[in-house]
Amino acid sequence: MTKWVYTFGTEKTEGNAKMRDLLGGKGANLAEMASLGLPVPPGFTITTEVCTYYYKHENSYPPELKSLVETALAGVEKAMGMGFGDKENPLLVSVRSGARVSMPGMMDTVLNLGLNDETVEGLAKKSNDERFAWDSYRRFVQMYGDVVLGVDHHDFEEVIATYKEDNGITEDTDVSAQGWQDIVGQFKATIELQLGKPFPNDPKEQLWGAIGAVFGSWMVPRAIKYRQINDISADWGTAVNVQSMVFGNMGADCATGVAFTRDPSTGENYFYGEYLINAQGEDVVAGIRTPQSLTKKGREMEGSDLPSMEESMPKVFGQLGDLRDKLESHFRDIQDLEFTVQQGELFMLQTRTGKRSAKAALKIAVDMVNEGRINKEEALLRVEPSSLDQLLHPTLDPKAERNVIAKGLPASPGAASGKIVFTSDEAEAKKLIGESVILCRQETSPEDIHGMHAAVGILTSRGGMTSHAAVVARGMGKCCVAGAGDLHIDVKTLTISVNGSQIKEGDVLTIDGSTGEVILGEVPTVKPEMSGDFGTLMGWADEYRRMKVRTNAETELDAKTAVDFGAQGIGLCRTEHMFFDHTRIQNVREMIFATNESERRAALEKLLPEQRKDFAELFTIMKGMPITVRLLDPPLHEFLPHEEEDIKHFSEAAGIGEDQVRVRLGDLAEMNPMLGHRGCRLGITYPEIYEMQARAIFEAALEVADKGQSVIPEIMIPLVATRKELEMMREVVISAAETVFKERGKKVDYIVGTMIELPRAALTAGKIAEAADFFSFGTNDLTQTALGMSRDDVASFLPEYAEKGIFERDPFASLDIEGVGQLIEIACERGRKTNPTIKLGICGEHGGDPSSIEFCEKVGLDYVSCSPYRVPIARLAAAQATINSKKGS
Amino acid sequence: MTKWVYTFGTEKTEGNAKMRDLLGGKGANLAEMASLGLPVPPGFTITTEVCTYYYKHENSYPPELKSLVETALAGVEKAMGMGFGDKENPLLVSVRSGARVSMPGMMDTVLNLGLNDETVEGLAKKSNDERFAWDSYRRFVQMYGDVVLGVDHHDFEEVIATYKEDNGITEDTDVSAQGWQDIVGQFKATIELQLGKPFPNDPKEQLWGAIGAVFGSWMVPRAIKYRQINDISADWGTAVNVQSMVFGNMGADCATGVAFTRDPSTGENYFYGEYLINAQGEDVVAGIRTPQSLTKKGREMEGSDLPSMEESMPKVFGQLGDLRDKLESHFRDIQDLEFTVQQGELFMLQTRTGKRSAKAALKIAVDMVNEGRINKEEALLRVEPSSLDQLLHPTLDPKAERNVIAKGLPASPGAASGKIVFTSDEAEAKKLIGESVILCRQETSPEDIHGMHAAVGILTSRGGMTSHAAVVARGMGKCCVAGAGDLHIDVKTLTISVNGSQIKEGDVLTIDGSTGEVILGEVPTVKPEMSGDFGTLMGWADEYRRMKVRTNAETELDAKTAVDFGAQGIGLCRTEHMFFDHTRIQNVREMIFATNESERRAALEKLLPEQRKDFAELFTIMKGMPITVRLLDPPLHEFLPHEEEDIKHFSEAAGIGEDQVRVRLGDLAEMNPMLGHRGCRLGITYPEIYEMQARAIFEAALEVADKGQSVIPEIMIPLVATRKELEMMREVVISAAETVFKERGKKVDYIVGTMIELPRAALTAGKIAEAADFFSFGTNDLTQTALGMSRDDVASFLPEYAEKGIFERDPFASLDIEGVGQLIEIACERGRKTNPTIKLGICGEHGGDPSSIEFCEKVGLDYVSCSPYRVPIARLAAAQATINSKKGS
Repeated sequence: MTKWVYTFGTEKTEGNAKMRDLLGGKGANLAEMASLGLPVPPGFTITTEVCTYYYKHENSYPPELKSLVETALAGVEKAMGMGFGDKENPLLVSVRSGARVSMPGMMDTVLNLGLNDETVEGLAKKSNDERFAWDSYRRFVQMYGDVVLGVDHHDFEEVIATYKEDNGITEDTDVSAQGWQDIVGQFKATIELQLGKPFPNDPKEQLWGAIGAVFGSWMVPRAIKYRQINDISADWGTAVNVQSMVFGNMGADCATGVAFTRDPSTGENYFYGEYLINAQGEDVVAGIRTPQSLTKKGREMEGSDLPSMEESMPKVFGQLGDLRDKLESHFRDIQDLEFTVQQGELFMLQTRTGKRSAKAALKIAVDMVNEGRINKEEALLRVEPSSLDQLLHPTLDPKAERNVIAKGLPASPGAASGKIVFTSDEAEAKKLIGESVILCRQETSPEDIHGMHAAVGILTSRGGMTSHAAVVARGMGKCCVAGAGDLHIDVKTLTISVNGSQIKEGDVLTIDGSTGEVILGEVPTVKPEMSGDFGTLMGWADEYRRMKVRTNAETELDAKTAVDFGAQGIGLCRTEHMFFDHTRIQNVREMIFATNESERRAALEKLLPEQRKDFAELFTIMKGMPITVRLLDPPLHEFLPHEEEDIKHFSEAAGIGEDQVRVRLGDLAEMNPMLGHRGCRLGITYPEIYEMQARAIFEAALEVADKGQSVIPEIMIPLVATRKELEMMREVVISAAETVFKERGKKVDYIVGTMIELPRAALTAGKIAEAADFFSFGTNDLTQTALGMSRDDVASFLPEYAEKGIFERDPFASLDIEGVGQLIEIACERGRKTNPTIKLGICGEHGGDPSSIEFCEKVGLDYVSCSPYRVPIARLAAAQATINSKKGS
Repeated sequence: MTKWVYTFGTEKTEGNAKMRDLLGGKGANLAEMASLGLPVPPGFTITTEVCTYYYKHENSYPPELKSLVETALAGVEKAMGMGFGDKENPLLVSVRSGARVSMPGMMDTVLNLGLNDETVEGLAKKSNDERFAWDSYRRFVQMYGDVVLGVDHHDFEEVIATYKEDNGITEDTDVSAQGWQDIVGQFKATIELQLGKPFPNDPKEQLWGAIGAVFGSWMVPRAIKYRQINDISADWGTAVNVQSMVFGNMGADCATGVAFTRDPSTGENYFYGEYLINAQGEDVVAGIRTPQSLTKKGREMEGSDLPSMEESMPKVFGQLGDLRDKLESHFRDIQDLEFTVQQGELFMLQTRTGKRSAKAALKIAVDMVNEGRINKEEALLRVEPSSLDQLLHPTLDPKAERNVIAKGLPASPGAASGKIVFTSDEAEAKKLIGESVILCRQETSPEDIHGMHAAVGILTSRGGMTSHAAVVARGMGKCCVAGAGDLHIDVKTLTISVNGSQIKEGDVLTIDGSTGEVILGEVPTVKPEMSGDFGTLMGWADEYRRMKVRTNAETELDAKTAVDFGAQGIGLCRTEHMFFDHTRIQNVREMIFATNESERRAALEKLLPEQRKDFAELFTIMKGMPITVRLLDPPLHEFLPHEEEDIKHFSEAAGIGEDQVRVRLGDLAEMNPMLGHRGCRLGITYPEIYEMQARAIFEAALEVADKGQSVIPEIMIPLVATRKELEMMREVVISAAETVFKERGKKVDYIVGTMIELPRAALTAGKIAEAADFFSFGTNDLTQTALGMSRDDVASFLPEYAEKGIFERDPFASLDIEGVGQLIEIACERGRKTNPTIKLGICGEHGGDPSSIEFCEKVGLDYVSCSPYRVPIARLAAAQATINSKKGS
C-alpha cells in the first residue's frame, strides 16, 4: 500500500532530505532536521502523490487518507502533550504547501489552525494573555477566510478599519482583547453572509479545508503560468505540511531568533545571530524592536547594552551552541537557522545552507578545508566563480547614501565617481589636469578608446551587456553602466536629461558597474583587499582544472594585468585596437582612402613598424606563452571620421577634399555593418592588409626570439564562412612568413587557424578544419548570427525577453547552449574528425562566464579566453567544470 | 593488359560517348560520331589512364605505348590512304588535349603536325597551292615552337613583323609562298638559338613531342589552379587525341561549314546553317567572307544571291541532309555540326547538342514530343526553367544600337526606357501626366513603393540581387538594375555622375534588367509573345511535379498576375507592405509614437479596417487557395520619416514637436536593423499589434466566407528563435480568433506556423514544431544569418567572391546548399519527427530558383513560393526536380 503520510518530530521521523520529490522541499527539510535529533515542532507531511491522486480522481483523496491523517495528528498531540480542539490545552497547527521546488502563486500558509470560540479561551489561559489569544484567533479567521474560503481580504481589512475609526484608534497595537473579539465576530458574520454558511468551528473541518485549499491552489492560473515559464511539470504535485505551532511570545521565558553558524559577511568562525525575548519571528525581521546579539562577543562588538542570549538564557543558548556544531558537522557548510523558545523549550524551525558574501564564501571554504571538514574539491565548488568579481574591484561604501537617478545594465564591475564629460578628447584633456571623469556617451565606438582609457568609468544610454562600451570596459577592468535608457545624453548641448531634470558637463556622477546604478554626486568607495585565501583557492583551482585559461588582450596594461591574474596566454589579440590609436589612425585612414593597391601598400608600409612594435611588446610580456593574433576584423568605415570637425581635420591632414571624404564615407557606409564587409572579407579583397599584419607578426617574433625568448604566434583569420576563404588567407600568411624568414635567414614556429563565429562555419567545420590548426569560437558573433540578434540593438527587447522567460539569461553573457551550443558541439565534433590534432578554444565574452565554461569543458575545449579581470573567475569555473564532469554531473 | 589507345574512324572504332572518363570529352565524342557511321577524319585517343600512369611513374609512359601508337597511326594512314612523313602524299595530324571536362589553362591544339621541309612540298603539290602549303608549315612551326617547345610567341611575331617591315608589307595575306618559306627558316633559327638544338624534322619526333606537351600541361600552375577552384581531381588526367587533318581550302571542290539541325533562335524545324567554298573553318566564323546559306530555303529567306550548298554541291548536301536526320534520331535533340568537304569528300568534325534560345527550346521540346522523338518528361528536362523569364518580359530590340554607360546587377528582368527621376513622389507626379520614368536611387526603401509602382523601371547604385529594390521589382515584374556602382546618384543636385560625365533629371535612360546594362537614350523594345507551346509545356509540368507552387504577394495586382501564371496559393503575404501605403503611413507612425499601450491601441484601431479590407480583397482573389499571412516583420523605424521635409510634414500632421520626433527617431535607430527589434520581437513587446492583425485576418475571412467562398488563412509568425516566442504569439492569434468567432457567432478554419529564418530556429526545430502547424523557410534571412552577410551590403565583396570561386553562385539567388541547406535539412527532419503532419514550404527568393527548387524536392518540402513572375519557372523547375528525383539522380 502506498504510504501517503510521513510524520516528523513525533515518536518516529519517517522522511529525510533526499525525499524532496515525495515530501516537497519543506517537508523533506523538516524530516531531515527531526531525524538529526533537532527539536523540531512535531508534525506530518501529506505527500505529493496524494496531490497527483487527487487530480487523477476528480478531486478526491485516497480512501485511507482520513484515518492516516487522524493517526498522524494523534502522534503530534502525544508528542506535544496537547489536544487538537482541546479546550484547556489546545494544539494549534500550521498548514503549508510544499512542492519539489519553491513555487510562488500557490497557497502558502495558514497559521494557528485549531482555534475556535472554545480553544481560544484555553490559549488565553495558557499564555496568560487574552489579547494575544484573540489577536491570534482573528489572524487565523482572516487568513483562513482569505486563502481557504476565498473571501476577499479587503473585506476583512475594511472591518478592522471601520472598527478603528469607530473607536478612535489608529494603530492595530492599540486594539484590545475585547476589540479583537468583536472583530472576530464581524469577520465570521462577513464570511457567513458571503458564503451562506458559517465559519467552521470544528478544528478537524478547518484542517481538511486547509488541506483541500493547498491541493486546489496547485491548479490556479498563476501557478500553472509559473510552471509553464519555469518548465515544472504539473505531475510533480505539491505536498501539505501540518505542523504544531510554537510561540516565542508567550512570556519572558519565550524568545525567537535567527542565526548563522559563522559570520556570513566576513566568514569569520563565530556564532552570529540575533534574538528577541517574548517575540514572534516576524518581529526580528520587522525591526520594530531592536534585536539583541546572540553571543557576548557579538554584543561587545556592537557595543550594545542589551544582554545577549548567551547571558540572559544561558541554558537554552548552550543547547543552541551544541546544535550549531552538530549542524556544521552534518551539513559541512555554514547554516542559517531559525528558532523559537517557547516557555523555556527550544524549537528549531528551519536550517538551511547560509547565503554568504563573496569574501565569506572564500574564507569559509578555505577554513573548512583547514579544519578538515571538507576537501579541496568541495571547497572549490563552494565559491560562486562570478562572485570573485566583487573582490577584484572597488565597491561603493555600503553605508553611504545614494541618490540613484537612473539604472542601466551592470556592464563592468567596480564603482567610480567623476565629473561628466561627453567626448573622449575632453576626457583626455581633463585627465591631464588631474581630474577624474565619467565618460558619458549614447554609445561608444572604437574612436573612444583613448577617452575610455582616460575616464574612471563609462556610462552609456544605449547598448547591452556586450555593447562596445561594455566589452571594452570589462577588458580594461574599468567600471561601466551601459544602456541606461532613461538618460537622454545630448552631446551638442552637453547635458543629460533624466526624468525631467537636467545635469550638465562637469557635474559629478557616481556609477556602480556591479548594480547598474547611476548616482548623482560623489559616493565614497571601498578598495578591494586581496586576501591570502584568494591565492590559496586559486592555487587549488589550478591543480584541478583541465582547460587552460587565456585572456583577450592587446595592450601592455591588459596583458600584464591578465598575467598577474594567472592567464596562460592570449586567446584573442584584436589587432584593430592597435589601429585605433590616435597617433596611427591617420595612416589607417589614408590606407582606406587609397584608390589602388600600390597606394594602399604605401600607407600600410607606414603602419608596419607600429604593428611590429606592438607585437614585440606583447610577445615580450607573455614570455613564451601562446598568443592568438586575430587579423583585421572590423569594417573599414569604423576607422573613418564621422563628426564634422573630425572630417575637416582628416581632410586637411590627408590633402583630400572634404567632398571626396564624404563620398567615400557614403560608399563605405553599411546597412548592417555586423554582417558587412569585414573579417576575412577584407583579407580577400585587400590581401595586402593581412600580408602587412602577418609580416609585422613574424618580424616581431624573430626580434623577440633573438633576445632568447620563445614565441609561438597563432594567427587567426576572422569571420570565415567557407574553407576556401581560410585556404586563401592561410596562403597569404604562409607566404608572408616565408618571405620574412628568407629575408632574415631565421624561422619561428607558428600556426594558422580561424574563428568559428558564423553558423555556416560551424556546420562546415569538417572541411574548414582541413585548413586550420586551431578553431577559436567567437561566440559573440556566433550568438548574434545564430539568434539573429545584434548585441548593439537588443536593449529594446531583451529585458522583456528575460522577464517573460524566453531566455533564462542574457544569451550574450551566458551561452545559449540549446542553440549556439549545438553549433559549437557540431563544429568540435566535425573539426576533430577531419583534423584530430586541432586545438579548440573560445574567445567570446562567454569565455569568462562560469556556466558557459562548464559547457566548454563538456565539449572538450582546450582553453577558454576572457578579459583580464575575469581570468580568476575562469580559473575557478574551469576547476569546477572539471570536478563536476568527473562526478559525471 | 590495360588498353591505352582507342582508335576511331579507322577500320574499327573502339570507344563511345559513355567513355568520357577514359577518353576525355573530345575523344568520346569523336568515337561516338565515328561509331554512328559519320565520316569522321580518322584518328586515335591515348587514354587518361596514360596521364595518370605518366605522373605515377616519374613522367614516363607505359612501355608498350610506343608500339600501340605506331599501330594506331598505321590504321589512320591506311584509312586516309596517306603516309605520315610521306613526301608525296603526307598525312598531317592534329594533336589535342581532352580531359573529362573542358579545362582552360591546358595545352589546346597543335595543327598540321607531320609537316617538314620534305612533306611541305608534297602538300604543295597535292593542294596545288604552294602558298597554302608554306603558310601551313609556318603556322605549324610557330604553334609547335610555342606550345610544345616553350619559345615565347612574341619572338615568332617579331620575325613576321620584321619581315613585313623589311618587305613593305602590312597584311599577312600579302606574304607570298616564298615569304613564308623564308619565315619558316628564321623561325627554325630562332628555335635552335634558344634551345640549342634544331627544330625536329622527323614527324614521329614531332608527334611524341606534342603528346608529351599535352601530358605536361596537366600540371602547369594555371591548370592546377583551375582544378582547385572547380573541384576537379588531379587524378582524372587528360587524354590525347591524334586526328588526321582535313582541309576545306584545297580548291573549288572543298568547303567548310557549320549547321544546326533546326533553327536555334526560333526552333523552327528546318536545316539551318552556313558554308563557304574553298575555306577553312575559321573563315566562316571570322566574317572575312560572307558565308552562304546551306539550303535554298535559307538563301531565299535571307534574300541572298550567293548559291546555297543545296544548289552548288547537291551531292554532298544530300549526304549532309541524311546525316542531319540520323543525328536527330540518334541524339533526339537539336545538333550543332561542323563539317569540311575536302576534294568532294564530306568529313564531320564535330556534333554536339545545339545551344538555343528560350523560345526555340520551348518549341523544339514540344515539337519533338509531337514528332514522337521524346516523351514529355524529356521535353520538360530540355527547357532551362530560368530561361522562361525571357519569354515573360519585354526585351531590347537586339538590332538597336546601345550606348552602355554602366553595368549593374541584372536584378529583375525586362527592359524599359524612361526619364530619370530621383524621388518616388516625382515618379508618381510624372506618371500622372503620362510620362514613363526610371526611378534612380542609391537604394530604395519601403517608402519608395509608390514610386516603384509608378516607374517603368528601377535603377540603384547600391545593393545586390536581393536588395530591397531587386526583391520588390521582381515581385512587381518590373525591370530593375541594382548596384550599378559606377553611378554616383546625387538626390540633392538631381544628377548622376558616371565616369566623369553627368546626366540629370529628365534625361532618358534605358535599363536592361536581364543583362544589367544601363544605356543612355531610348532603345526600342520587343514585346513578349506567349506562344501556345508555353501553355502546353506548363501543362505537362503540372502533370509531373509533386510540389505545389505558391507566390509571394500582397497586392491585388501581384496576386492576380500570379494566379494567371498558375500560382496555387500565397506562400508569403507581407502585411507590412500594406502599412507602407502612403494613405496609411500616418496612422502607422502615430502607432509608433504612442507612449503607452492604450494610445497604441487607439492608433491600431484606425488601421484595423484598412488591413481587414486588404485581406478580404486577397482572400477573394485567391478563391479558396491557401494564403500564408506573415504578421508584422520589419523594425518600426522603417516606417518613420527620415528626410527633413518628411519629418516636418509628419510632425505637423501628428501634432508632435519636431524635436520629439527626432528624439524618437534616435531612440529607434539601430546599428544592425536586420538583427534588431523586428519580427516576433515586435509581437512580444507590443502584442496588441499582432492582435490587431490577427483580428483583421479573421474578420476578413468571415466576411469572405459569408459570400460563400472558402478561406483557410495560415498565420505566420516571423523571426522566431525559440519555441516560447512562437507559443506566446500563437496564443495571441488564437485568442484573437476566439474573440472574433464569438463576436460573430461563426468560425473559419486556420492554422498557425512560423518562418524558419534563423539558424537557432532550424537547430531547435524539433521543439518549435510542437507549437507550429507549418514551417516556411525564410531563406533570405536564413542565408544572411548563416553566412553572416547582409544582403544590402554584399555588393562590396560578393563579386570578388564569385570571381575567386569562393561561392559558385550568389548565395542570395541560389541556395547555399552546403551551409544553409544543412540547416533546412536539419529543420525538416527534426520538425517532422515531433510533428509528422507539419506542412513545409519555402518563401525566400530561392523559392523561384531552379537549383534551389531541386533541393526543396530532395528534402521533401510541400511547396515553394516565389514572386509572381517566377511562378512559371518554379512550376517547370519543380517538375524537373520530381522527374530527376524519380530517376534517382
